[in-house]
Amino acid sequence: MLRIITLTTDFGAIDGYVASMKGVILNINPQAVIVDLSHSIEPQFVRQASFILHTSWRFFPEGSIHIAVVDPGVGSHRKAVILKTPSAYFVGPDNGIFSYVLHELAQTHVSQNVPSTTDLKKRLLPEGCEAVALSNQEFWRHPVSSTFHGRDIFAPAAAHLSMDVSLSEFGESLDSLFAFPIPEPFTDPAGNVVGCIVHIDRFGNLITNFKKEHVPPKGAAVEIRNQRISSMNRIYAEGGGLQALIGSNDYLEISIKDGNAASLLGATVGDTLKLLNAANL
Amino acid sequence: MLRIITLTTDFGAIDGYVASMKGVILNINPQAVIVDLSHSIEPQFVRQASFILHTSWRFFPEGSIHIAVVDPGVGSHRKAVILKTPSAYFVGPDNGIFSYVLHELAQTHVSQNVPSTTDLKKRLLPEGCEAVALSNQEFWRHPVSSTFHGRDIFAPAAAHLSMDVSLSEFGESLDSLFAFPIPEPFTDPAGNVVGCIVHIDRFGNLITNFKKEHVPPKGAAVEIRNQRISSMNRIYAEGGGLQALIGSNDYLEISIKDGNAASLLGATVGDTLKLLNAANL
Amino acid sequence: MLRIITLTTDFGAIDGYVASMKGVILNINPQAVIVDLSHSIEPQFVRQASFILHTSWRFFPEGSIHIAVVDPGVGSHRKAVILKTPSAYFVGPDNGIFSYVLHELAQTHVSQNVPSTTDLKKRLLPEGCEAVALSNQEFWRHPVSSTFHGRDIFAPAAAHLSMDVSLSEFGESLDSLFAFPIPEPFTDPAGNVVGCIVHIDRFGNLITNFKKEHVPPKGAAVEIRNQRISSMNRIYAEGGGLQALIGSNDYLEISIKDGNAASLLGATVGDTLKLLNAANL
Repeated sequence: MLRIITLTTDFGAIDGYVASMKGVILNINPQAVIVDLSHSIEPQFVRQASFILHTSWRFFPEGSIHIAVVDPGVGSHRKAVILKTPSAYFVGPDNGIFSYVLHELAQTHVSQNVPSTTDLKKRLLPEGCEAVALSNQEFWRHPVSSTFHGRDIFAPAAAHLSMDVSLSEFGESLDSLFAFPIPEPFTDPAGNVVGCIVHIDRFGNLITNFKKEHVPPKGAAVEIRNQRISSMNRIYAEGGGLQALIGSNDYLEISIKDGNAASLLGATVGDTLKLLNAANL
Repeated sequence: MLRIITLTTDFGAIDGYVASMKGVILNINPQAVIVDLSHSIEPQFVRQASFILHTSWRFFPEGSIHIAVVDPGVGSHRKAVILKTPSAYFVGPDNGIFSYVLHELAQTHVSQNVPSTTDLKKRLLPEGCEAVALSNQEFWRHPVSSTFHGRDIFAPAAAHLSMDVSLSEFGESLDSLFAFPIPEPFTDPAGNVVGCIVHIDRFGNLITNFKKEHVPPKGAAVEIRNQRISSMNRIYAEGGGLQALIGSNDYLEISIKDGNAASLLGATVGDTLKLLNAANL
Repeated sequence: MLRIITLTTDFGAIDGYVASMKGVILNINPQAVIVDLSHSIEPQFVRQASFILHTSWRFFPEGSIHIAVVDPGVGSHRKAVILKTPSAYFVGPDNGIFSYVLHELAQTHVSQNVPSTTDLKKRLLPEGCEAVALSNQEFWRHPVSSTFHGRDIFAPAAAHLSMDVSLSEFGESLDSLFAFPIPEPFTDPAGNVVGCIVHIDRFGNLITNFKKEHVPPKGAAVEIRNQRISSMNRIYAEGGGLQALIGSNDYLEISIKDGNAASLLGATVGDTLKLLNAANL
């Protein structure tokens, strides 16, 4: 039996929304081990939820179930779905929230740098994945509200899944899900690699979409908001100013020892930055 | 054996207060399943705790134990109590924190619209409910502090309750608890129904004390802060401006697609609003 | 088998860092009971984490494991350690984060009032304590990052510890750990006792380093930021202005009924205050 169910939402800490979901889960599976992944996603910021989920889900035991509910279209025509990957289950709205997970699995590269929420597209599932729509109302809570599917559809679905209800019982099979393009770095005419900030963490570290393989073996300089950062280090405690390092999810980050790089630079998610070609240094 | 214990407090996220309560519970019942309901109640805002608890407790399995500690009078003459209802247990100070729960069960209607914290009154328990004072010091943690009964009285009481200690062992039986009046909509001379905002959630949705039955079958307009809202919809994603809908706890809410209605309107808890009589439209 | 693992970090609520640690723990010990102690420690504020941990750990069952990760030096030469005390285990960086715990156990008094982060010193372990360095890579997650030892070293160590791996298997024994001096009140030439604010809680209560034994049996006046506070009470609900009382962790606190003493006084952690000698009143 699967026991672990994680929750990623934009419900925040004040209201009883998260607790209501947990109550519904425990009603169905009193043995469920429920883990908060994050409830502080910015309201309706589906991309942020998708990214945060992607940085954490793979550290959970195989077969864990991850509910993600950032769902501005709740009650509309958007589908409610389960995505089964080779090592985990994901439950949530079909609104792009699983884009990073799908991208990880597909390793498809989309050469587009600027995040946009407008170009959601249906994409075929990567090999080894399955998906179903949560159309079988037998697994919903009743009466079902039109504004809180987290409590009435996603939580009960995950709980039933954790009780070994098989995927096909939840509803019709899907061969594609909606996903937004994941911004990938690209090389500009001058030979620099252009990327962007995909997340800013609690410490003000700027997490970019550069991965290890984008960084020249001998390091490089980073240009961001008209500042050049030449320190390429290994740990946060190095350096006396802004520095770049490879963070714990293998993305290049901009940080500063004992400080907040985001505040210092006035940087925000979506800002572009460049890994400079040695010839341009 | 009862296993689920939920916690609703104004203790916030920084201090170790919540964890201390959990430690005390786990010392007494290592099998307890502890669920955070909310710890971000505004300091000493008993009414908010009462409302939040009311929106969530009923989704938990029968027999769950709900501790609620927003307790400005800790250590004073106010009693510490357990309330037993037909489907759950509540543990906390006798300061009105269970007003909404009692109201739900009693379905008494009090025609008073403006929330006030000054008119706490003793009210007889609804049928099917029991209450006891936590006077038996055998079930307290010792030494008991005069400033943190959450840790020293409520947590141990809930833990012992979850170990099947019977209600009568905790202390003397009570036939009434303190409660504040729940503001109920009323009809004004012009035939409009006057209500108020009882909660603003993380999304800025204004949750009112209007329930489904107050809304005319053909919809109505809402007037709030000199704005008239004529869109009565079913889901958050509809409309292009302010709208009203019935939310997931069956209260009428004011929301706006992809925005924050509270900020837009400058609305706060306690503000009045009107459901306009068709004749006044 | 030890089952309870608590977490104290400065990771905040948005990112997936805390969840990643929980996933790693549950992979190793699916039966672990994980409890959040605090994740809202101010970024890199090791002293705050040390104090908060100290106010809460002792309420957990004997044998509980407390992970504390506020770790600005992650990846540097600072050691990763387990501290075993007579009643609990602590896992974290050797950067002073266990100073308050060690102080509690050693009851050594250091006559120094002003907190400082610069005078970390190696101190011999109190009697009955043991410590080891987490040098045995067999108990690390691989590949180990250089920026997130919470996930890759501390979480797996705690999980293995909870599975009864013996202390000596984790690495070499240590007879001392780094600790900062705990500020202790001292008597000034005029006979007043000088102390400082060590923490401000969510309610704005100023928690000082005065303990019961510093307060004259007949009470005293407190002087802080040029204000004299003469009310010495027992509970928060007393008094009509600023008051002093002994809080739930046996420290003297400055509070105000229905208000926030910290805002009112403009007080911050580290501010000094005096318990006035009766002769000076």
